[in-house]
Amino acid sequence: MANKPGLLMVLSGPSGSGKGTIVKELLSRYEDMRVSVSMTTRQPRPGEIDGVHYYFVTREQFEQTIAEDGLLEYAEYNGNYYGTPIAPVQKMLEEGKNVILEIEVQGAEKVMAKRPDLVSIFIGIPSMEELERRLRGRGTETEEVVLKRLEAAHYELSRAHLYRYLVLNDEVEAACDRIKTIIDAEKLRMIRANHTTLEVNGYVGT
Amino acid sequence: MANKPGLLMVLSGPSGSGKGTIVKELLSRYEDMRVSVSMTTRQPRPGEIDGVHYYFVTREQFEQTIAEDGLLEYAEYNGNYYGTPIAPVQKMLEEGKNVILEIEVQGAEKVMAKRPDLVSIFIGIPSMEELERRLRGRGTETEEVVLKRLEAAHYELSRAHLYRYLVLNDEVEAACDRIKTIIDAEKLRMIRANHTTLEVNGYVGT
Repeated sequence: MANKPGLLMVLSGPSGSGKGTIVKELLSRYEDMRVSVSMTTRQPRPGEIDGVHYYFVTREQFEQTIAEDGLLEYAEYNGNYYGTPIAPVQKMLEEGKNVILEIEVQGAEKVMAKRPDLVSIFIGIPSMEELERRLRGRGTETEEVVLKRLEAAHYELSRAHLYRYLVLNDEVEAACDRIKTIIDAEKLRMIRANHTTLEVNGYVGT
Repeated sequence: MANKPGLLMVLSGPSGSGKGTIVKELLSRYEDMRVSVSMTTRQPRPGEIDGVHYYFVTREQFEQTIAEDGLLEYAEYNGNYYGTPIAPVQKMLEEGKNVILEIEVQGAEKVMAKRPDLVSIFIGIPSMEELERRLRGRGTETEEVVLKRLEAAHYELSRAHLYRYLVLNDEVEAACDRIKTIIDAEKLRMIRANHTTLEVNGYVGT
């Protein structure tokens, strides 16, 4: 018997929102959680593994994938393509896995337009002051980088209203609990109803 | 400080779906749960208390409430009006209570049109055979009543796709757990975000 398909989720949030830590925690907590691997034309850095950190492809391969409509979203930065290939995501969903796309706001908006079943979650921050404290607290970035990230955060927050859910990351464990609650509730959405068990005509979700 | 407003919910489902039992269980489990009291022009039956079972009003009072747009929905059956008055619901929501409307499909559709914030839950049944077994199992209804209820159930199931969530009532405790999960997730919806804590302009949910 086929698995019930998993959920397609996107997690976005400003740099410093802690979304990377949340994704790691979700992956370690739940056996049925996966994260999407992006495709890129940039060169692998030392230690990066093809198929784990990225799918590393040539420019021709990437443009071929674009032509085949094989990407959920893509963009070009500094002369390199970055995108989310559909095929591996679709395969994981069909295997019943919940798949997280950890992408920024512009990419997420493109996926929202393509996939109305997308569960979009914005990772919120207690305040801009707290975000600034976290960004400076790392101690590894120059003032210029910190200011750039704060500016980007302002932009991202201005697009947050497009997301279905807002999960405040005051504490990683609590934020993961909230995401688990969202997943459980989303599985009860009428659009995901398993019609065969209901045996009723016209019982088709929208 | 004002409470965070509660959720407005509608629970519908065919006769025999067990939604009455679910509502009772939810009210006894959660202190912040309330059920809306309907307004009617029919005569009180012995033991029925005004403001508890119904708000009993005159035809003139009911039509005055209609004229003032004071009802979330209403209908006329057998020469009597039945409806859901807005004012007491609104007051409970403002006090932070989650308010359940236990109304049938046609009434629920009217509320959906008026209140996009409505959390609509359809109580599903394992199968039509199980529903028939439950309806007959009561042993208190005539064959005619059972057949009428089965026909009504078919109609209600054909409108189930309009609801946001489907909660299967295979077991009352489990069904209530699912509804609690829905409530917790709905409180994380962006449309219900408490913007004052986010301190960001443009962060307004839609």
